[in-house]
Amino acid sequence: MSAPFVVVGGDAAGLSAASKCRRTDPDRDVVVFEKGQWISYAHCGTPYFVKGQVDRLEDLLSLSPAAVAERGIDLRRGHEVVGVDTDSQTVSVRADGETFEQPYNDLLIATGARAVDDPIEGSSLDRVFTLHGLDHAAAIRAFLTPPEEFAVADLGGGDALAADVVERYGAMSPPERVAVVGAGYVGVEMAEAFDAWDVDVHLFQRSERPVPGFGDAVGDAVIAALDDAGVTTHLGEEVVRLRGGAGAVDTVVCDSGSTLDVDAVLVGIGIRPNVALIEDTPIERGGSGAIATDAFGRTSVDDVYAAGDVAEMPHTVTGEATWDPLGLPANRAGRAIGATVAGDPQPVGSVAGTAMVKAFDLECGRTGILDHDRARAAGFDPVSETITAGSRSGYYPDAAETTVTLVADRATGRLLGGSIAGTDRAAVRIDTVATALGGELTVGELERQDLGYAPPFSPVWDPVLVAAKVLNGSL
Amino acid sequence: MSAPFVVVGGDAAGLSAASKCRRTDPDRDVVVFEKGQWISYAHCGTPYFVKGQVDRLEDLLSLSPAAVAERGIDLRRGHEVVGVDTDSQTVSVRADGETFEQPYNDLLIATGARAVDDPIEGSSLDRVFTLHGLDHAAAIRAFLTPPEEFAVADLGGGDALAADVVERYGAMSPPERVAVVGAGYVGVEMAEAFDAWDVDVHLFQRSERPVPGFGDAVGDAVIAALDDAGVTTHLGEEVVRLRGGAGAVDTVVCDSGSTLDVDAVLVGIGIRPNVALIEDTPIERGGSGAIATDAFGRTSVDDVYAAGDVAEMPHTVTGEATWDPLGLPANRAGRAIGATVAGDPQPVGSVAGTAMVKAFDLECGRTGILDHDRARAAGFDPVSETITAGSRSGYYPDAAETTVTLVADRATGRLLGGSIAGTDRAAVRIDTVATALGGELTVGELERQDLGYAPPFSPVWDPVLVAAKVLNGSL
Repeated sequence: MSAPFVVVGGDAAGLSAASKCRRTDPDRDVVVFEKGQWISYAHCGTPYFVKGQVDRLEDLLSLSPAAVAERGIDLRRGHEVVGVDTDSQTVSVRADGETFEQPYNDLLIATGARAVDDPIEGSSLDRVFTLHGLDHAAAIRAFLTPPEEFAVADLGGGDALAADVVERYGAMSPPERVAVVGAGYVGVEMAEAFDAWDVDVHLFQRSERPVPGFGDAVGDAVIAALDDAGVTTHLGEEVVRLRGGAGAVDTVVCDSGSTLDVDAVLVGIGIRPNVALIEDTPIERGGSGAIATDAFGRTSVDDVYAAGDVAEMPHTVTGEATWDPLGLPANRAGRAIGATVAGDPQPVGSVAGTAMVKAFDLECGRTGILDHDRARAAGFDPVSETITAGSRSGYYPDAAETTVTLVADRATGRLLGGSIAGTDRAAVRIDTVATALGGELTVGELERQDLGYAPPFSPVWDPVLVAAKVLNGSL
Repeated sequence: MSAPFVVVGGDAAGLSAASKCRRTDPDRDVVVFEKGQWISYAHCGTPYFVKGQVDRLEDLLSLSPAAVAERGIDLRRGHEVVGVDTDSQTVSVRADGETFEQPYNDLLIATGARAVDDPIEGSSLDRVFTLHGLDHAAAIRAFLTPPEEFAVADLGGGDALAADVVERYGAMSPPERVAVVGAGYVGVEMAEAFDAWDVDVHLFQRSERPVPGFGDAVGDAVIAALDDAGVTTHLGEEVVRLRGGAGAVDTVVCDSGSTLDVDAVLVGIGIRPNVALIEDTPIERGGSGAIATDAFGRTSVDDVYAAGDVAEMPHTVTGEATWDPLGLPANRAGRAIGATVAGDPQPVGSVAGTAMVKAFDLECGRTGILDHDRARAAGFDPVSETITAGSRSGYYPDAAETTVTLVADRATGRLLGGSIAGTDRAAVRIDTVATALGGELTVGELERQDLGYAPPFSPVWDPVLVAAKVLNGSL
């Protein structure tokens, strides 16, 4: 009798793999070990839960434990895999204080990412939050809710919720001023979430612009959106220390020496691949520190796969291994590995780093390589252009200015990346650029793509095409 | 001294060519002959002018005659080219009752399309309209406006407007019931325009669904949108005759024998390439009846180009010559020909038939080959799937059901076409499919495209990716 397909981690990659494996081969035994209580939750939805737009924690779960069981998957929550022996093909699992050995036939490591430990001096003070996991999100929303309106049952989540911590924050007076440290997409989305509770929001970013991965033009548009919304931005300011009294944070200290009194801090700087499990194994890590994988998600060790936020994937543009922890590639790689393990080999695809972020009314997107230094390091000679064009025919009401940046290689004309910002259907337009990257189009070819045109939705020349025309003209 | 670049037709293709030629070679003489008074107008915007969302006729002009002159283009309105002599390289031009010969060095035929003459018996009755040109649009809006509120000056358009006709309609009582004959995209958009004036709208379509070029699934979604809006659809009913008394239409007669009393009729069935000018020339027409062209927009005769609604272009998927009169390909081909004529040869690209249409709150898009018979005729073995998926993460408010159809070739997996309908950012998502066609992706490759994900804009698996997954699974 063969050993099961063992999956370590019950989130996007792990449960996609487990589900696809069972669908492809219903006779295959699949065991999923999840160290926590939450499974398959939508990390990207947590800011909207804090904001109150998403009502209950269970709304963020794409699969309930019962639904997983119905798929014939043996899901074990509260089970932490603490060791891997790739020679004997077993993992060591700890649960309820006991440890046992579990043989595997195929193994998927999908342990995800974790917030950086103590990213700033003082991070362990009370009322300092990260946003890693639903318990954090619940605690923040509890804190924001006036005590007289708070009821832990309103948050949902059932017995998976760490209710004691949440109730402690629910009893506190809501913060009047919050500092958000780090203006990546989580920071920007959390600024919007805090603002919805009428909190005075201060957003700190070490670089000169927010969402640096989205490029300068999007960064400028986000600054304007934050200003319009009344968020105070502190750009080019690095928070070096959090200070507090009675155990709770009360002051943010910047490298310039300036300080700000606050009632709470959200730290949104940095996650790392959760690779502790493989440290004493022959499973190799790539240059990013995440687990190295091949086109089918296989690691350097036979029958061991890795996917999701713990693994590298090939980059769509450069082909080089990259660590871009994002939701779709995790789901896609998990699903492909599930099929492969079940006997229907499927490639995991590549990652272009395509991402979208909402900053109040502003929609932003990015894909591929925007950074010129990174493009040069990959052997390209990058040229970029930024344009602003209407989202609709100029005569149609409510056409919105849409800013597009495209980057191409001067020698070959190949498109390398792009970004977009605007208030009218801007974010989804990045998918056109992402698909052009996937098709390895030149910017001249992108200029000639036969995109749609209708006055309410797009001008004759979509802003992406306008950018392609201008960039192609300057190559 | 060389003769000028002569352009016949002052609309999208013609003026794009003239402008690009002058920008590329400012010393080049460019003459544009336009038989009418209107130039460079947005045909696709006319329903929204009728509706009243676009205020004035001049809002629909992307270029004024003055702006054309500023570009150094010799624009002659009211000049009809009535003959072409390709041996002597001259055109015969009629203006103010006189005819003169104009030599050319390069010639672009951009005479566009015209409404089918007398498409239905009784089409020449009064209060029967097509929507071909701004004078028609102005007449319809004048008719819809209550006489006590009507002023011809409110429509704009200056001396280009045929004011006498418009004033006659402005003096009439507005129609209470209108029949729209033909539910292509103009018919659907005009139904919305009439509805905005509280007219009882009846939409007739010979086939079982509106917008047949968009496929069955979009057709069904449009039917639901029209029903919700209170438009009465008469599907599977062919209008065979319009009857009237005192010269004005009062009855629509269907092939079934059923009749409907109406106060006005909008006929939106069919346009033809305006090829009269080349009938006695060696310039060849393709199988569609439009002018045959090569990859650079050249006709069968040296130094003669054709572009826009009068010309064929290669199809993105089949490579075969096709007649797909749409705005972007006209602009793109004109622009490329202008560059080519000025000494910087640029290909005109291909046409995928990408189109978008708005049906009240519903956004629709289509691209490539949806029709299985057409796919088979091009040598493919078509397989299609239709799915419905959310436009956003399910937990995020106002996620909208989005219906996607994709078609692929069974043998190769190559994507052949797609369509989409939904109320939340649906139309622009067709550009992802169009770009996948341009990149000659298989449906498996489309499934692995790294599209964006953010709860407010797109679920982890964008509806287009969901459709690709399902179709790829059934190949």
